[in-house]
Amino acid sequence: MLESLKEKVLKANLQLVKNRLVLFTWGNVSEIDRASGLVVIKPSGVEYADMTAEDMVVVDLNGNVVEGKLRPSSDTPTHLEFYKAFPDVGGVTHTHSTYATAWAQAGRDIPFYGTTHADYFYGDIPCARSLTQAEIEGEYEKNTGLAIIEKFHASNLKPLEVPGVLIKSHGVFAFGKDGDQSVYNATVIEEVAKMASITEAVNPQAKRADQFMMEKHYMRKHGKNAYYGQKK
Amino acid sequence: MLESLKEKVLKANLQLVKNRLVLFTWGNVSEIDRASGLVVIKPSGVEYADMTAEDMVVVDLNGNVVEGKLRPSSDTPTHLEFYKAFPDVGGVTHTHSTYATAWAQAGRDIPFYGTTHADYFYGDIPCARSLTQAEIEGEYEKNTGLAIIEKFHASNLKPLEVPGVLIKSHGVFAFGKDGDQSVYNATVIEEVAKMASITEAVNPQAKRADQFMMEKHYMRKHGKNAYYGQKK
Amino acid sequence: MLESLKEKVLKANLQLVKNRLVLFTWGNVSEIDRASGLVVIKPSGVEYADMTAEDMVVVDLNGNVVEGKLRPSSDTPTHLEFYKAFPDVGGVTHTHSTYATAWAQAGRDIPFYGTTHADYFYGDIPCARSLTQAEIEGEYEKNTGLAIIEKFHASNLKPLEVPGVLIKSHGVFAFGKDGDQSVYNATVIEEVAKMASITEAVNPQAKRADQFMMEKHYMRKHGKNAYYGQKK
Amino acid sequence: MLESLKEKVLKANLQLVKNRLVLFTWGNVSEIDRASGLVVIKPSGVEYADMTAEDMVVVDLNGNVVEGKLRPSSDTPTHLEFYKAFPDVGGVTHTHSTYATAWAQAGRDIPFYGTTHADYFYGDIPCARSLTQAEIEGEYEKNTGLAIIEKFHASNLKPLEVPGVLIKSHGVFAFGKDGDQSVYNATVIEEVAKMASITEAVNPQAKRADQFMMEKHYMRKHGKNAYYGQKK
Repeated sequence: MLESLKEKVLKANLQLVKNRLVLFTWGNVSEIDRASGLVVIKPSGVEYADMTAEDMVVVDLNGNVVEGKLRPSSDTPTHLEFYKAFPDVGGVTHTHSTYATAWAQAGRDIPFYGTTHADYFYGDIPCARSLTQAEIEGEYEKNTGLAIIEKFHASNLKPLEVPGVLIKSHGVFAFGKDGDQSVYNATVIEEVAKMASITEAVNPQAKRADQFMMEKHYMRKHGKNAYYGQKK
Repeated sequence: MLESLKEKVLKANLQLVKNRLVLFTWGNVSEIDRASGLVVIKPSGVEYADMTAEDMVVVDLNGNVVEGKLRPSSDTPTHLEFYKAFPDVGGVTHTHSTYATAWAQAGRDIPFYGTTHADYFYGDIPCARSLTQAEIEGEYEKNTGLAIIEKFHASNLKPLEVPGVLIKSHGVFAFGKDGDQSVYNATVIEEVAKMASITEAVNPQAKRADQFMMEKHYMRKHGKNAYYGQKK
Repeated sequence: MLESLKEKVLKANLQLVKNRLVLFTWGNVSEIDRASGLVVIKPSGVEYADMTAEDMVVVDLNGNVVEGKLRPSSDTPTHLEFYKAFPDVGGVTHTHSTYATAWAQAGRDIPFYGTTHADYFYGDIPCARSLTQAEIEGEYEKNTGLAIIEKFHASNLKPLEVPGVLIKSHGVFAFGKDGDQSVYNATVIEEVAKMASITEAVNPQAKRADQFMMEKHYMRKHGKNAYYGQKK
Repeated sequence: MLESLKEKVLKANLQLVKNRLVLFTWGNVSEIDRASGLVVIKPSGVEYADMTAEDMVVVDLNGNVVEGKLRPSSDTPTHLEFYKAFPDVGGVTHTHSTYATAWAQAGRDIPFYGTTHADYFYGDIPCARSLTQAEIEGEYEKNTGLAIIEKFHASNLKPLEVPGVLIKSHGVFAFGKDGDQSVYNATVIEEVAKMASITEAVNPQAKRADQFMMEKHYMRKHGKNAYYGQKK
């Protein structure tokens, strides 16, 4: 069942290690098969080096395990909220990557300081609010997803245009058309977070770059008339 | 004598190198065999790359070498104090890992800024006081252990709930149920120390995260009803 | 056509990865064959690991593709402006390397703080101004080159004496006698940018080093009576 | 001639790369044979990966090349001053390692903040003054050595007790009983410089550690009654 997707999700999870986004088991990637509404996700607390495609867990959008011998990631309910709220999201990555998590702990949006950022994020990388005590003591992981979705709606953000978000005092969630792309975007967030922290150290009065530069850079990669990369 | 424990302690020491916690010979791991009351520890000043399981030194809780051709780590008396004071500690790691040591040199507890921290530490990571001149000129390594134990008692901390500590102007000691787990916790301390320093650089007014988040994250991994990871 | 130059440009691009100057496809190197006026450059958006010499694109100074199945780097018009304006430049590198890009985002020249800098850069590493809205919405990549050339002319800089430049809110361009040397200089910029940021953290009142030290260090490597390295 | 010393000096130079203290050709190690008064040193501007033991250059204390086809390091006159001034120094390393060079550029001694420092340096790591214009335009490299020696004499420092020094706006020189030990000490300087910069970021009011801790830690490794490591 979904064998090739399991293989793909395994590889996307291993990419977390290669891109230095995770220590131990501190990250997970999922991808949805929209046709069946089933999601393939990393098992909880399993070392990347030991995982096989067979270890990937298949869940439905209600969180029921449909196939797999292992428990799915404890963050599964967060992933599922994204798939339910954002129809164009096909993959989700969660990490505690160092610099991005520091920005999350600092409770700050990552400002748009340059083209590296604008090549992938059409706006600041938002930091969603802390959860309340009731939200944390209730369905915590689901509520994490809901707080993020609330932020996207309140700020009128589209998840494939701003394909990642911090959540206060926690870490990173990144989106993509599929799992691979969500890992790619999580990698960009970490690099952009690092650059932004050095930018502010070097110039505490650093200003956001111009909006028309954002427009240009984002659109040359992602717009209707994109001309970056090869024709497909 | 304790051959499989020596093998295990060797591997735990090599993990220090893999996890980038040590330069040269600047760290050591021990584990206790509670049945016999004997402790296996790294030999002093020996390069990790050159060590074999046979080089591990067996000492009793009074610090007498029971087996082994080499001298035990000069930090052995510190390790032994922990085993004597904390009956549930089975392994101890000492490092001078970069960021954690910087916090020790800064003389500060590492504040609980987020879930990465709370997943392993039920409270701030404490920084024990400097030793007095008399303590340093006397049984220095033993007194290092006693100052840390004093801190745990004064703050009513349990070493498997707050499984690591800084000591002012020195470095890190981490605890675990066994040697491996103490290395794991030492690795977490280094990462959390790095994240905390970036957090404060990015937001000098950063606040500790909410206590109920600490509760939730620590308990979902370590509490009675833990649901992170696989059933065992 | 220009087969050996393609091979050389491929290797120079791979050096970007080796020297840790790029994530994903975020950098490119070109080299000009002055005899024919043709430029060989990396194809746009292609992963370094997948590239072959055959994938390198040959363009003329007007940006027409003369040979190659792939689109040239989207930054090609910037490279071409340099070759047209600076007759002694034989190679150009563009990167978003972390520390140098942070300085670009901070909008600051990198001050000459020491001999590491002076060994390669005869003066501060300049940061060219932001582009205007009209420049960005017009021929953006060409205008990026023109803004940099304007800076060099206004400050009376020679591109082989100050073989690199930041551009505000964007990244790095480095020059060389050939592609390899431009990668070398891009690597120096990243290291010097990192050192400069730590210098200022450690001493916010740090001063530029003495001009006569600049003179000495630059000239012992690059002057008429250079005595660094081996006779050629 | 001195074949085994050439082999040893080659390996010490390669250790610079392994310990991540150098980019390109930015560092060199020498060792003296006190019996003959001859010094073996890295050739100038040669890549580490390409060097063989035969490439090492033998010079006398006046800087005459006694054997070798290549030019010796341009820093040779600095090394020679140390061998002439400090009879117990057997090896010298020069690097531009990142953090230590930043401290040199900042023009600050590295304060004794903890035991990592005290295990190898019996006091702050000093930063020697800038050279004057006359010194730089004259016998520059020799004068670099003299300025450092002046600092050691003025502060009454012994080079094997404080086995390394920064020189303002430049970089690091480290000493040892032989070349290997000087590389070891250069590695310690880089790590201690990094820790010190983080220490001050985390606590701008951080204080030097207690002198009696310095005494204890330095002496347990280097004193008459040293008990760190194995008996020899």
